[in-house]
Amino acid sequence: MSSNQQDQPTDLQENFTLRMRGLGTRTVVYQQNVAASLGLYNNDYLSVDILHEKGPITAGELSKLTGLATGSVTALIDRLEKNGFVRRENDPNDRRKVIIVPLYENKEEVSNTYHPLHTAMLKLASSYKVEELELITQFLDKASTILDEQIEHLNSTPRK
Amino acid sequence: MSSNQQDQPTDLQENFTLRMRGLGTRTVVYQQNVAASLGLYNNDYLSVDILHEKGPITAGELSKLTGLATGSVTALIDRLEKNGFVRRENDPNDRRKVIIVPLYENKEEVSNTYHPLHTAMLKLASSYKVEELELITQFLDKASTILDEQIEHLNSTPRK
Repeated sequence: MSSNQQDQPTDLQENFTLRMRGLGTRTVVYQQNVAASLGLYNNDYLSVDILHEKGPITAGELSKLTGLATGSVTALIDRLEKNGFVRRENDPNDRRKVIIVPLYENKEEVSNTYHPLHTAMLKLASSYKVEELELITQFLDKASTILDEQIEHLNSTPRK
Repeated sequence: MSSNQQDQPTDLQENFTLRMRGLGTRTVVYQQNVAASLGLYNNDYLSVDILHEKGPITAGELSKLTGLATGSVTALIDRLEKNGFVRRENDPNDRRKVIIVPLYENKEEVSNTYHPLHTAMLKLASSYKVEELELITQFLDKASTILDEQIEHLNSTPRK
């Protein structure tokens, strides 16, 4: 079986990549629907989500992580600040820097929107044995690392 | 351990949902970067992706799957048809219906853009034993079903 790594992918391996792609498409549609239900632009909502994961970051870092131009990110932060999703603050470690601090966990509407998905995912998680869930969680980490590398790669190649 | 399902989620279960969310954010950023590298709007690229998975569908079905208004979808199909990503055809099963047929697998630039991710995912797949990859593939299916349900749920609740 180990020769497989050099050979043609198995049906299971190809099937796996199809499922990953199917999950990816649904994820994008889901995010768009959540954004729309909150009355936010897709990129504004995506930024809220990135800030939730990363914690406070600079506008430059947000620009890099979203792939948006600096000017667009400035307008985006203005909109999010106006609607109470983020706050601009001086970086306590470097007063010359301004960081974007997420506030949205206080916003009940965001947690309410996420709540049904979170509950359904916890229910799915509880259907697995500890070792199985560990395997899946590690897999999710590896897949995330691959996507980070691919995003980096796409950002380093010239645009059309 | 089985009482867990009614009780507080374990750290592993909460960690799992965090990883799912992290993967989701990266998926959205990746899709945006792929769309940008192909010179397509996000929703245009998303539609190409949905058509790849579903095969030929009507404009009404595409509108439902993307969550976009009918008018936006008409303009979107016009753009994709103009750029050779899709073709409008009469449904062979019902001549009164027009279906959108994906053409983009012929477009080398799309497969080239996807190729590095596909290769990396196949490599990750080949690092797992058959039983492990089966477990992961089934998990991806279950997670996709949950997202389909959540999208349905979001679409059935009134927008802001």
